[in-house]
Amino acid sequence: MSQNETAPASDHVIHSTFTLERTYPQSPARVFFANSDKAMKRRWFVEGEGWEIDSYTLDFRVGGLEASRFRFQGGPEITYDAVIQDIVKDKRIVFAYRMSVAGNPISVSLSTIELVPAGAGTLMRYTEQGTYFGDPNAPAGREHGSRELLEKLAEELARAG
Amino acid sequence: MSQNETAPASDHVIHSTFTLERTYPQSPARVFFANSDKAMKRRWFVEGEGWEIDSYTLDFRVGGLEASRFRFQGGPEITYDAVIQDIVKDKRIVFAYRMSVAGNPISVSLSTIELVPAGAGTLMRYTEQGTYFGDPNAPAGREHGSRELLEKLAEELARAG
Repeated sequence: MSQNETAPASDHVIHSTFTLERTYPQSPARVFFANSDKAMKRRWFVEGEGWEIDSYTLDFRVGGLEASRFRFQGGPEITYDAVIQDIVKDKRIVFAYRMSVAGNPISVSLSTIELVPAGAGTLMRYTEQGTYFGDPNAPAGREHGSRELLEKLAEELARAG
Repeated sequence: MSQNETAPASDHVIHSTFTLERTYPQSPARVFFANSDKAMKRRWFVEGEGWEIDSYTLDFRVGGLEASRFRFQGGPEITYDAVIQDIVKDKRIVFAYRMSVAGNPISVSLSTIELVPAGAGTLMRYTEQGTYFGDPNAPAGREHGSRELLEKLAEELARAG
């Protein structure tokens, strides 16, 4: 999207926003907990088959950091570094995060989680306002990956009861 | 924009993106410096007639903080807290920031500054991906205020030579 056509790919900046919605049978308080408790969030957000987790931490307060270092099937190190930006208990979480692969920045995003009561359950609305460097396919890939994470959250909520 | 019509105004979340462009006669290196040097950025970014600056700090590195506390004509305290997210010298700066007025969060934004050579000068492209709480007029106000800041930057660049 950069107008500087002679720049290397990593100089190209793409801005893209998507919103996903997923309804869970659990209460807003449970869904909020799954997004704010370090042990529970680690299980659905970073763990998974084929993923090696070198580190994960979450300091859930405004200004607090969430960070992870991980690899997929022995591949290059991926870094995730977030800062919690806004918290409304059981209703809203906003965080900004950057990612890199093998030391190269690939994106910075602003994510908003909104939790809305839906019967006895919860409508979770996830909006990601992303800034991507270089790869024109990155926004679609991020949306796909985020959709998968919402399904992993469903499994973790069902498992935790 | 929240679908929960019974929620108080501050629960409503508005996502909005705008891009501004401004050409400066100074080089990308000068415009980058004006966006990264603490003393110079303070002059155009927070100082101004009617504004009382209680504090300003900038630690310009990825993960570093920029923060200010200020008031307009004796009004309530306004807080600005940014984290630098990406730096490509003389080309790009990405930062995420949150603002509050009188202790109430009003927005979180992801800002991208792109600097593109334009003759002997610089095209600065400023994109802000914003998340606003409650006020439906906030996105238009932010765009207006950002346009004014690009003009203040022009004055500071001309003054500094």
